[in-house]
Amino acid sequence: MLRLLHSCLTPRWIVSATVAIIGLLSVGLMALLLQDNSYIKSAYVSLTTVPVQSEASLVPVIHDGDKFTATSGGEPKLEKATFVMLVRNSEVHDARSSIRYVEDRFNKNFHYPWLFINDEPFSSNFVKMTRNLVSGNATYGVVPKEAWSMPNWIDRQKAEECMKTMESHKIPYGGMESYRHMCRFFSGFFYRHELLADYDYYWRVEPNTQLYCDITYDPFTFMREKNKTYGFTITLHEHESTIETLWPTVQNFSRAHPEHIHPNNALDFIVDDQKNITEGSYNLCHFWSNFEIASLKFFRSQAYGDFFDALDRSGGFFYERWGDAPVHSIAAALLVDKAELHWFYDVGYRHQDYMHCPEPLAEFHDSGKCYCNPDNNVDSSSHSCTKEYRRMRGDSGEQ
Amino acid sequence: MLRLLHSCLTPRWIVSATVAIIGLLSVGLMALLLQDNSYIKSAYVSLTTVPVQSEASLVPVIHDGDKFTATSGGEPKLEKATFVMLVRNSEVHDARSSIRYVEDRFNKNFHYPWLFINDEPFSSNFVKMTRNLVSGNATYGVVPKEAWSMPNWIDRQKAEECMKTMESHKIPYGGMESYRHMCRFFSGFFYRHELLADYDYYWRVEPNTQLYCDITYDPFTFMREKNKTYGFTITLHEHESTIETLWPTVQNFSRAHPEHIHPNNALDFIVDDQKNITEGSYNLCHFWSNFEIASLKFFRSQAYGDFFDALDRSGGFFYERWGDAPVHSIAAALLVDKAELHWFYDVGYRHQDYMHCPEPLAEFHDSGKCYCNPDNNVDSSSHSCTKEYRRMRGDSGEQ
Repeated sequence: MLRLLHSCLTPRWIVSATVAIIGLLSVGLMALLLQDNSYIKSAYVSLTTVPVQSEASLVPVIHDGDKFTATSGGEPKLEKATFVMLVRNSEVHDARSSIRYVEDRFNKNFHYPWLFINDEPFSSNFVKMTRNLVSGNATYGVVPKEAWSMPNWIDRQKAEECMKTMESHKIPYGGMESYRHMCRFFSGFFYRHELLADYDYYWRVEPNTQLYCDITYDPFTFMREKNKTYGFTITLHEHESTIETLWPTVQNFSRAHPEHIHPNNALDFIVDDQKNITEGSYNLCHFWSNFEIASLKFFRSQAYGDFFDALDRSGGFFYERWGDAPVHSIAAALLVDKAELHWFYDVGYRHQDYMHCPEPLAEFHDSGKCYCNPDNNVDSSSHSCTKEYRRMRGDSGEQ
Repeated sequence: MLRLLHSCLTPRWIVSATVAIIGLLSVGLMALLLQDNSYIKSAYVSLTTVPVQSEASLVPVIHDGDKFTATSGGEPKLEKATFVMLVRNSEVHDARSSIRYVEDRFNKNFHYPWLFINDEPFSSNFVKMTRNLVSGNATYGVVPKEAWSMPNWIDRQKAEECMKTMESHKIPYGGMESYRHMCRFFSGFFYRHELLADYDYYWRVEPNTQLYCDITYDPFTFMREKNKTYGFTITLHEHESTIETLWPTVQNFSRAHPEHIHPNNALDFIVDDQKNITEGSYNLCHFWSNFEIASLKFFRSQAYGDFFDALDRSGGFFYERWGDAPVHSIAAALLVDKAELHWFYDVGYRHQDYMHCPEPLAEFHDSGKCYCNPDNNVDSSSHSCTKEYRRMRGDSGEQ
């Protein structure tokens, strides 16, 4: 019945009307469906087996690089935190570039470990070309097959038809199945990967990204001490055509699990006109998740698990092309206290066409801390949701 | 009479034939002309006056940044050397990016000073946005007017007609007068700038360039200890249409000043088939001079001074569009012992479309030293003159 929500590229008003009726009826059914969580168990089992290509990829690489040179002196006490990069063997040089930026601007003084994850075994070339570029340990793992496949409740034929339709409409990545697996992996699986088990926080690093400002403090410590759950640098509007039924599905979830919606949530970031979840429309605002510093405990919580399951069961990762960015963002906006969100305004960051560059000249530029061009800051463009974030925060949101 | 050599875009055979006759006749005349070096004296006088925008730009900026952390320990003893960047105010962010690369890969451990030179006074914005990004002193100077103008022996009308013709032929930078001033400044004036007076070596840094490998030793010390004069990373072929009469002019110079041609020169790099200067043709090979680590004493030598004067008097910087790259390269190839040239093979470097990336994986990549993609190395492309350089060296030339 839930699949009826998805007809690839339905006009929005039809979707909304259908959802309004079906949504109310389906709350009870969804609750029943979600009690059968056997697929979650099987996924957990598979995740304990991490295939790697060679013994080299299982052996953490220890480095005797530069010593910590922060003004406090001595080695910093590390948080239970790691970098996470999902990357293909063919992207090794884009990965190396991202590593270099993160190490130069931050990690050369801290030596946090790096975790590289691939949907197929890492080549020895990838391992050799990256393991000595990082100043912390390097570990290489593989995505379990179950976390990179269409689950059994997905109608493959329908999914393929949807991909073709979206491709013909030139929707970004609309025709790519692998992109969908990536989005679903980041939405519901990375935090359950065996190699992340010992960590409380992660910093997601995408290949081919740039950092432009020295980060002289430990952002993980900041997250822990300030009780932050989700940190970002850039906000954008999602392509509406990729998530036509995402918000109706979230609305259904909120009816099924009102206990998970935080009373002091950040709904005002993602819904305009101070409307509530049921009455409001999603304004497409999201945190651009290719940069994230966030709490793994949050993603492993019952609330997030129920949220992901509701979304995953609805099939939108395949019948549409839901990105992990709106999924993470809507969860972060609804399931935690809005005070737990953090804009890493001080982190100059670029990926592809969009850059966040801190603007105050004296603090960030004349000081020598950053070297990006603040005139090219995405924050003030129409693509950004800076306005909505500040509205929700009720202040500049930069602290 | 020398001006007859230049007819903007003359078919090469006419140029060659004309030159063969005129060249022989003009040796004596050129020798006479060069005895009148009053213009050199006036240039020297003007160079002692360096206009700057504000007092801030004259005051070296002292930094208390990271201490030197090379394995030898302690502060390194610096050579009499500096970075030199010719840059416009509008290029401040490209400049910042280049600085960041040089500091991260090398200078954060050495703190060599930076000298920024502009054809107009630096803005306070440029100074503020760069002075704390460098780990050594930062000094800001201006090119004296005489080093950025057409000298009085240039026929401006003819020069403008030549620029128009070259622009209509879509010759790179063919229509730009400022580009010609830049090439002439680097060919004959930068090393006489007052702010360079105390230095023996310089490292030229172009805005918008990238470095990809850790440089853990001092290249200036290497130059001094190994008695090197000119260091480069990339060799390319020049656009022939920009230098039609350059080689004939060099041939004339070699006849007028045989005492300046080094007996163990690197002619074999720039002339094929083992021909001598008079009989051979220039194969267009040059060191790409936007990256240079070189001896200022060489450029200040009588030999180079006579060489530049001969070229400058002929007018080719304006009637054609001679680049400083072939000018420096031909001088380095003819005036010094070929053992004094050095390929900084270990320096991964990119400017615009061309990148040199060291290829041996174990030494440069598996070690974590470099992060460029060696598959995109320009050395093995038809644009490069690696083959000619190795032929001249008689070995791999990488040491």
